[in-house]
Amino acid sequence: MTFTTATAVHAEAPGRYEAEVVPGWDIAGNANGGYLLAMIARAVTDATGKPHPVTMTAHYLAPGRPGPVTVDVVPVRVGGRHATATATLSSSDGPLIVAIATTTDLTRASGPMLVDARPPALPPPEECVAMGGDADSAAPSFMGKVDLRLHPEDAGFLRGNASGKAQVRGWFRFREGEVLDPIGLLVAVDGFPPTIFNADLPVGWTPTVELTAHVRGIPVEGWLRCAFTTRFVTGGYLEEDGEVWDASGRLIAQSRQLALVPRPA
Amino acid sequence: MTFTTATAVHAEAPGRYEAEVVPGWDIAGNANGGYLLAMIARAVTDATGKPHPVTMTAHYLAPGRPGPVTVDVVPVRVGGRHATATATLSSSDGPLIVAIATTTDLTRASGPMLVDARPPALPPPEECVAMGGDADSAAPSFMGKVDLRLHPEDAGFLRGNASGKAQVRGWFRFREGEVLDPIGLLVAVDGFPPTIFNADLPVGWTPTVELTAHVRGIPVEGWLRCAFTTRFVTGGYLEEDGEVWDASGRLIAQSRQLALVPRPA
Repeated sequence: MTFTTATAVHAEAPGRYEAEVVPGWDIAGNANGGYLLAMIARAVTDATGKPHPVTMTAHYLAPGRPGPVTVDVVPVRVGGRHATATATLSSSDGPLIVAIATTTDLTRASGPMLVDARPPALPPPEECVAMGGDADSAAPSFMGKVDLRLHPEDAGFLRGNASGKAQVRGWFRFREGEVLDPIGLLVAVDGFPPTIFNADLPVGWTPTVELTAHVRGIPVEGWLRCAFTTRFVTGGYLEEDGEVWDASGRLIAQSRQLALVPRPA
Repeated sequence: MTFTTATAVHAEAPGRYEAEVVPGWDIAGNANGGYLLAMIARAVTDATGKPHPVTMTAHYLAPGRPGPVTVDVVPVRVGGRHATATATLSSSDGPLIVAIATTTDLTRASGPMLVDARPPALPPPEECVAMGGDADSAAPSFMGKVDLRLHPEDAGFLRGNASGKAQVRGWFRFREGEVLDPIGLLVAVDGFPPTIFNADLPVGWTPTVELTAHVRGIPVEGWLRCAFTTRFVTGGYLEEDGEVWDASGRLIAQSRQLALVPRPA
């Protein structure tokens, strides 16, 4: 089943969509946050009549499990270039995610250009460490959906040998060979192992409180180069900043999430 | 009138607050976006019963002008540690801002610490360039409310001499001598001149599409050190990343906004 099918939504009434959280997009039973966000993006772009989310923020309230969900979209303003809406993704147990998005048509994007950064330097994908491959036998089923190759310098945590730097860099694509659209980028920005796994801290998991993604362009076909870094772990929270570059060398997404840092039990 | 008074909200009904956009907090007639966000934060923290917004996102729909406004808050989930709500700030003309916030009590924040960054190096405030001072006679009235001192290297744009680097660093405090609370930080993250003023691009103004602020701590009394940078101007958008450090040397807020880059007429 392609990503497009696995995130499809069906309009049931104006502003109300039905969808199905498909098994396989989960980490230990909980659906990947970017996968759920992509479902919301499909509903919001449909409801606002503009094809691409240029900025989208999700607050995560409860984990999502396989099964039926609904997405309720409330358009707040629909203008010529942008539309803005709030959206709630709910299961029968209640709301799982509340989100806000501004949509546009990125094919019409133009303006002056200034780029003061470079894509992350990565060895070729075949020289990187494949998540879900031989070096990662305990990989979650989500890794059967995405093809994720970590920079060898950032993969030490898989063998209990964290690099000491809260950074994860690597390549990303869908396993089905499906071309990633701007909504697929929402999976890339939440699809890598937590940066904190490479820090020397007693932290086992970092549930996302909030994730904001800016979609800055439409990716060309091919591997995405991704880099995630954390600079501040303070007061029980951390931020994780992401950059996604496409195969033509353009930055196509930025992300930042705020995550909880629970202490080990 | 203090900032606290200028951002006060009054509960009119459950989830509905009245407020007044006070003259003086504007740039060319339009209220500062952080000032309006602070009003929303007061309503959301009141409605959720938790004192601090730990992450807050606003999508800006229309400019705010002095006069009465309402803030409608819809709590989505209220838990023990966090609460999440959406909120809409409206004038009689319609919605101006739609926002989403997660609130908490930051006085209870604790956890492991890792900081891989330093506050921006700034000359002392008296050696910086005061916005609204002698070097800046065309300053907006907003600069009568905040005391903002730019790093001399980043103040060249005031004399038509942009540094060439899309960066603005400086000190921030309220002019009234009022201690900045976590809600006051929302003004700091949107209170500086646009980074783009220091880039060599034909861009005159950059309206905010979306602003996300993470409040990472409660500031101690004293000047805030702030730094804003833009690395990507592409396709008619730019991001602006902010860091705010308090007088004790702790990072207390991070921000990122997505802004439009209109071409000059």
